[in-house]
Amino acid sequence: MNSFGTCYRVEILGESHGSAVGVVIDGCPPGLPLAAADFEEDLARRRPGAAGTTDRREPDRPEIVSGLYRGRSSGAPICVLFRNEDAKSGDYAGFERVFRPGHADFTASRRYRGFNDPRGSGHFSGRITLGLVVAGTIAKRLLREVSFQTRVLQAGGRSDVAAAAAAAAAAGDSIGGLIELRATGMEAGIGEPFFDSVEGRISHIVFAVPGVRGVEFGDGFAAAAMRGTEHNDPFVDSSGRTSKNGAGGVNGGITNGNELVLRVAMKPASSISAPQRTLDFSSGEMVEVSAGGRHDACIALRAAVVIESAVAIALADLALVAKTYPFPEQS
Amino acid sequence: MNSFGTCYRVEILGESHGSAVGVVIDGCPPGLPLAAADFEEDLARRRPGAAGTTDRREPDRPEIVSGLYRGRSSGAPICVLFRNEDAKSGDYAGFERVFRPGHADFTASRRYRGFNDPRGSGHFSGRITLGLVVAGTIAKRLLREVSFQTRVLQAGGRSDVAAAAAAAAAAGDSIGGLIELRATGMEAGIGEPFFDSVEGRISHIVFAVPGVRGVEFGDGFAAAAMRGTEHNDPFVDSSGRTSKNGAGGVNGGITNGNELVLRVAMKPASSISAPQRTLDFSSGEMVEVSAGGRHDACIALRAAVVIESAVAIALADLALVAKTYPFPEQS
Amino acid sequence: MNSFGTCYRVEILGESHGSAVGVVIDGCPPGLPLAAADFEEDLARRRPGAAGTTDRREPDRPEIVSGLYRGRSSGAPICVLFRNEDAKSGDYAGFERVFRPGHADFTASRRYRGFNDPRGSGHFSGRITLGLVVAGTIAKRLLREVSFQTRVLQAGGRSDVAAAAAAAAAAGDSIGGLIELRATGMEAGIGEPFFDSVEGRISHIVFAVPGVRGVEFGDGFAAAAMRGTEHNDPFVDSSGRTSKNGAGGVNGGITNGNELVLRVAMKPASSISAPQRTLDFSSGEMVEVSAGGRHDACIALRAAVVIESAVAIALADLALVAKTYPFPEQS
Amino acid sequence: MNSFGTCYRVEILGESHGSAVGVVIDGCPPGLPLAAADFEEDLARRRPGAAGTTDRREPDRPEIVSGLYRGRSSGAPICVLFRNEDAKSGDYAGFERVFRPGHADFTASRRYRGFNDPRGSGHFSGRITLGLVVAGTIAKRLLREVSFQTRVLQAGGRSDVAAAAAAAAAAGDSIGGLIELRATGMEAGIGEPFFDSVEGRISHIVFAVPGVRGVEFGDGFAAAAMRGTEHNDPFVDSSGRTSKNGAGGVNGGITNGNELVLRVAMKPASSISAPQRTLDFSSGEMVEVSAGGRHDACIALRAAVVIESAVAIALADLALVAKTYPFPEQS
Repeated sequence: MNSFGTCYRVEILGESHGSAVGVVIDGCPPGLPLAAADFEEDLARRRPGAAGTTDRREPDRPEIVSGLYRGRSSGAPICVLFRNEDAKSGDYAGFERVFRPGHADFTASRRYRGFNDPRGSGHFSGRITLGLVVAGTIAKRLLREVSFQTRVLQAGGRSDVAAAAAAAAAAGDSIGGLIELRATGMEAGIGEPFFDSVEGRISHIVFAVPGVRGVEFGDGFAAAAMRGTEHNDPFVDSSGRTSKNGAGGVNGGITNGNELVLRVAMKPASSISAPQRTLDFSSGEMVEVSAGGRHDACIALRAAVVIESAVAIALADLALVAKTYPFPEQS
Repeated sequence: MNSFGTCYRVEILGESHGSAVGVVIDGCPPGLPLAAADFEEDLARRRPGAAGTTDRREPDRPEIVSGLYRGRSSGAPICVLFRNEDAKSGDYAGFERVFRPGHADFTASRRYRGFNDPRGSGHFSGRITLGLVVAGTIAKRLLREVSFQTRVLQAGGRSDVAAAAAAAAAAGDSIGGLIELRATGMEAGIGEPFFDSVEGRISHIVFAVPGVRGVEFGDGFAAAAMRGTEHNDPFVDSSGRTSKNGAGGVNGGITNGNELVLRVAMKPASSISAPQRTLDFSSGEMVEVSAGGRHDACIALRAAVVIESAVAIALADLALVAKTYPFPEQS
Repeated sequence: MNSFGTCYRVEILGESHGSAVGVVIDGCPPGLPLAAADFEEDLARRRPGAAGTTDRREPDRPEIVSGLYRGRSSGAPICVLFRNEDAKSGDYAGFERVFRPGHADFTASRRYRGFNDPRGSGHFSGRITLGLVVAGTIAKRLLREVSFQTRVLQAGGRSDVAAAAAAAAAAGDSIGGLIELRATGMEAGIGEPFFDSVEGRISHIVFAVPGVRGVEFGDGFAAAAMRGTEHNDPFVDSSGRTSKNGAGGVNGGITNGNELVLRVAMKPASSISAPQRTLDFSSGEMVEVSAGGRHDACIALRAAVVIESAVAIALADLALVAKTYPFPEQS
Repeated sequence: MNSFGTCYRVEILGESHGSAVGVVIDGCPPGLPLAAADFEEDLARRRPGAAGTTDRREPDRPEIVSGLYRGRSSGAPICVLFRNEDAKSGDYAGFERVFRPGHADFTASRRYRGFNDPRGSGHFSGRITLGLVVAGTIAKRLLREVSFQTRVLQAGGRSDVAAAAAAAAAAGDSIGGLIELRATGMEAGIGEPFFDSVEGRISHIVFAVPGVRGVEFGDGFAAAAMRGTEHNDPFVDSSGRTSKNGAGGVNGGITNGNELVLRVAMKPASSISAPQRTLDFSSGEMVEVSAGGRHDACIALRAAVVIESAVAIALADLALVAKTYPFPEQS
């Protein structure tokens, strides 16, 4: 449901236009130096500002409610909240009648029998991912040998990402994006067969990020068109390094010590200024809507750090689980 | 680890060349008519036989150990075993020294400090997916309004799938494949925000199937190159039907009642008859290996029903979780 | 760890002298009417005031951070915080050197390598049970057919509970207590074999309440001294009513529709004004300590509502799990 | 449901008169030397034979289905089955009409809508605890510094346990029993606040054992009648040793390094040869029944090793969870 993880557990809470969004992290080892300022670097990567990002301006000030003592994690659950300060619910008022296409308005209403908070997508808002960034920052601290490089490879099919986003914004349109994450320094032997494979755990949490449509590892969908003779990837040294790393750093669900490589497809934001026709569920008529509110032309730009955070959470959890082996007698 | 699910829980066990592989299913509602023969249809789809599939011939006879009484599920855990009868461990003897490229030999050895059973990939064998098929058959019974259509769209990049597989087999090579699953009849409102989205839960279990490299929903990776004006998908009737179903049946992680559509990329089987060069970890020298044993030229052919089973397990679990709402007072 | 439940999940957070304590509840069905005022009745039962309770005066004002919309549960996680306003950390300053006997100071320090927050027991404080009361209030709303009666049967071995508590307080001493809970209206058929029995789930959460030393159901420890001929308890009507209810409402881990009866033993509060001798871990010398701070002479008085809350949480969770049976085809 | 544990996970399966009972253990660290013969010592303690135990004679031969390789745990799930060979279903035939008092017949029928296997209590049989003994044996291997002493303190209220059991058997009656477990060598710092306390986890699994009515730690229910001045228990050396160990080895849910002490109350077996009056649910009449079948006069005798196994499972799981702390950077 709203929690993820076996040993490093993340629980998410809040609504876009309620009083706050936040996160509770259970299982963070004690003694980790930590302060609110440590979250700023990744929060800044998620914050709008560049061309093609929303005008909503939230300070995103993390309030650490619990779990720290004298500047370090104490072993107790870490709760971090972000107050909602720049919510403009009026912008969304019409949408309680007309479910916005491509949003969770309709499905949330079905799931929760109409009791869900619909303002600004409520609990389904991208704003909820602030908590992921916090949990991801801590996770990356735990994975201190690992370096992450995450970037938007393409936006709307173009490699000149910034230009493409600016053009879409200017046109009142939105565009999708392709995000690539590379992580080096991941030790071999992390991951849990059968179900809790590295790919399985990562994709599970990555699909929680609003707008994700696909996840692939290594050579991904291209592998489906390959022959074994071109695909196969011999070991070349005793650390487990392979010649091509087409597996993206994972064999049998377990890290092999090569670079972890994955790509994530983000859809175009559904909210655009250009008018769209859709059903008015109350009248049964097709009507024309256009998104007021403040939106992102290319959500991939701000989502990159969220994807990185999600991956880090999954990896930190698996790394903690792996610590339960071996007992001293086997070492 | 080796279990999956919140309310419909599947635990997998066994090794390729041990005494058996099997599955334990907890949480199956009582009263479901069930017999060993009910598993045969899907087991047959998984069984080799067509051109491009392995020569290993296992009868795959399900032995129901527990959980049935008078021909129906009793509410107690259902345990089903498959004895290993046609194991030829000798075929793999050399591979304890030379980790096979693309297999889990190396990573399993790291994860389990060399104590894992390496014969025929041991617990990492594709044979372990027999249990998934059993659990999937039962899951589909629980989802009795849902119809699944699963097929191999392409093999090695070609649409003439059977011909491509036969050609690869004849060449002693292997090819990847692209599997598409479509499920109609899924009611709207199934799925758990934030983390247990339909896509997240499905991809989690699908990546447990050996050889999967990518998963996408609806328009998937193509969405990354789209503009919002071409991507957006208005509602066209009050059941929630949309004009294009580019979301593949899911919004905000919750089913919207449209057809569920997903595609899975399978890599070429790593074991091929053609010789490959790789490292001998004991000598530190590059050596030439070729796969004895009995292998599939196109694992996508037999994996299609396994993918379908995995998806059905994830959906049945979410459907059971959804039953916890609402309490009578809300209805 | 800090969460409990399968379908109705409760996560606890905070420290006694940090900024707040609180709770996150995931899985509460949507549509339940709910407001901060609804928590007051049970919070008042937990609040000190009677003779034998601490002088710490916290307003215990619940701040609902998320999960409500228009006065009802929305289906999203419900987060409720209580700010710490009357914390006096100075009272505890000496105890960082001398671990208080009977408290978690020593074990928390071992578990968290000295990084835990020791002020007022930190995360181990009885104050953390405020969140249990909130989650229990909601759980009781979900169990709307069930009536709970919880009382302190004995304090310090005496049935004149109030007088015993007052006497202990006057003497600067503390006393243990015996709490009995009775719940009528629980429907038959709730509980999950094998491990998630009603008794198992209840005792699991009840032992989380600081100071609990034992839990028994029905005739409890007395049953150990009985013969079958005196113990056995025939059914007397077709609703499943039995003649003696020695099982306390549970057979085979599943409710039988009779009154649920359980008793909980609470130890005397470890903090007393009277001086005690214990080890100074830094000097290795035995020293004399007496508890400053503000303490309860009989924690059972305020714990009764916490025990009731814990039981309600366990029962509500099991009741939700039970809703996953049956599928329509079996009904 | 039928599984228990976070990192050392035990899943139980089977029915008394089905084909087998068994267990699947996931998370056992690899490399542990293990063979079927290793289970014999504890199985023998559970096996009937002494006066006051049932005449059912099962060889209880463990069949190791998976998870071992070359005489050691491989890291994959360990599945162990026990075939049912001496089942006499005829003995129970009448009980499908008349639910036996004190058994799970009635509640199982309610929970599973009459689809449960009622023969010999089916999945609710004490026979299901064979799997606990297997999982407990392995757990004790993992806790190699810990010594367990478990004994029946009293049977039917008498300290001459064997004589009391023989007398009850001779009288066609049954008696309850009081079991005490002591474990030395448990390191300090094991246990998870808030919910996964040592007492909470242990009592959770102990109540799964059929016939348990109460669990207490240290001075247990006696503490409820004590004053703080007599109860308090100063530290006497820097290892954390206390003067009285009234807490039974646990403070704040975490082991303190003192001896772990707990007592479990077992009810008299409900099945006795002496006739009992109870309701015939089909006719609505009170009828007289007497237990055919083969029963134990004092289940506490055979349950002692089962309780010990259950406690070991809970402790091993918590010990594995504790290994996730600390990360190297904190040590």
